[in-house]
Amino acid sequence: MRSIFVTGSNRGLGLGLIKHLVQSSKPPEYIFATCRNPDKALELKEIAQKSGGVHIIKLDLTDIDSYKNVVKVVEEKLAGRGLNVLVNNAGISSKFARLNYVKEKQLTEAFMTNSVAPILLAKELLPLLKKAASNATDKKSMSVERAAIINMTSILGSITENDQGGFYPYRCSKAALNAATKSMSIDLKDDGILVVCLHPGWVRTDLGGKNAPIDVDTSIQGILSTLDTLTEAQTGCFLQYDGKMLPW
Amino acid sequence: MRSIFVTGSNRGLGLGLIKHLVQSSKPPEYIFATCRNPDKALELKEIAQKSGGVHIIKLDLTDIDSYKNVVKVVEEKLAGRGLNVLVNNAGISSKFARLNYVKEKQLTEAFMTNSVAPILLAKELLPLLKKAASNATDKKSMSVERAAIINMTSILGSITENDQGGFYPYRCSKAALNAATKSMSIDLKDDGILVVCLHPGWVRTDLGGKNAPIDVDTSIQGILSTLDTLTEAQTGCFLQYDGKMLPW
Repeated sequence: MRSIFVTGSNRGLGLGLIKHLVQSSKPPEYIFATCRNPDKALELKEIAQKSGGVHIIKLDLTDIDSYKNVVKVVEEKLAGRGLNVLVNNAGISSKFARLNYVKEKQLTEAFMTNSVAPILLAKELLPLLKKAASNATDKKSMSVERAAIINMTSILGSITENDQGGFYPYRCSKAALNAATKSMSIDLKDDGILVVCLHPGWVRTDLGGKNAPIDVDTSIQGILSTLDTLTEAQTGCFLQYDGKMLPW
Repeated sequence: MRSIFVTGSNRGLGLGLIKHLVQSSKPPEYIFATCRNPDKALELKEIAQKSGGVHIIKLDLTDIDSYKNVVKVVEEKLAGRGLNVLVNNAGISSKFARLNYVKEKQLTEAFMTNSVAPILLAKELLPLLKKAASNATDKKSMSVERAAIINMTSILGSITENDQGGFYPYRCSKAALNAATKSMSIDLKDDGILVVCLHPGWVRTDLGGKNAPIDVDTSIQGILSTLDTLTEAQTGCFLQYDGKMLPW
């Protein structure tokens, strides 16, 4: 892929993804790395200083009205080219809480950041994704080389796999993003844009905690390998970092 | 069941459910019928005037802070008894729209009414539902006679069944409610409270439109028959009005 847009790039999986992309044998020409506070994203800034392709963009996903300006910045940088990949990576977690401890604020915040924002960001970036899809040499198949939306969800958003209960804000907002993924995959099929949702595994990040079984590198290596293999056969699917298909 | 609480009772399926309950051979002693504007709910008021068991309660589901007062009213009427059934019936639809026509307001409103409200209403009514469950003669099995939460969702919330795309606000908020249903069923299993989500069928209501294949009576008769057959085997499941199991 020539260009990729990643939300929540200041830490965790987002930062890991940017690192791996920069270090890959054929790095994307344009890496748009967004985060709420670029000033505080020291590691990301260091990466951007070392490699010319990384563009850090300030983006607070709860400020929907700001999306248009962000898209303008991306459009200017791409100078007529399309955007190959949007990775809706940023998300907020919620503590494990059973029904009697659920709070309104936690629910509405989770829906905003984990469901509403990825849908509306995809909508705003759609013209650039369509441009990449229609400018591709191979217009018959789907791939991340052509155009794709990758929604980072979680196995906690799998209703089938839920055997622990609780976690309402996180589970419900990720199930909603999974539902959006399926609709996007259908709505954008004729445009040649591939859409999947990905469970990154349970990863040792601020969000995943110290007890998680895999590290960021393992997750990101798996995700990048999986992304490379994606075709129209996987569009609309829910995959784990290692390519394993997950149930809704 | 001795008591039931139904949201969105002024029209459509909610009103149909109240009508059928009142006319049943063994009507519940307490039917709490909520709606936003009781003054305008003429048909519901007529039913309440004819039958003593129907209590109309003003409830705007977007006003979460008002839930506590509503629960107080219900508690007073029940005078020490528990509540057998909560039917989270009220919901808002969304027009069919593909990704490029989705609007922030439609998404946030759908999540509030279709996902956040049912979860938080269940939370507030939990002490009364638990009371009914623990006061039941049969404390080993689950049933609507004992205690249950019925979340009215839709087949449009089934990610598996989605082959048309679009409908983001409705599909995503109903998928979120389905996810909440599964967590509730696990969280409340030890309390003996049964939880299912129900697809009422595509029904000729204001929401379903004129072209829907089944009428309110067919849907409600199916729902009531299905509710009667529910046991712990179905808790956490997604069922159609006629009892058919649906995929997530």
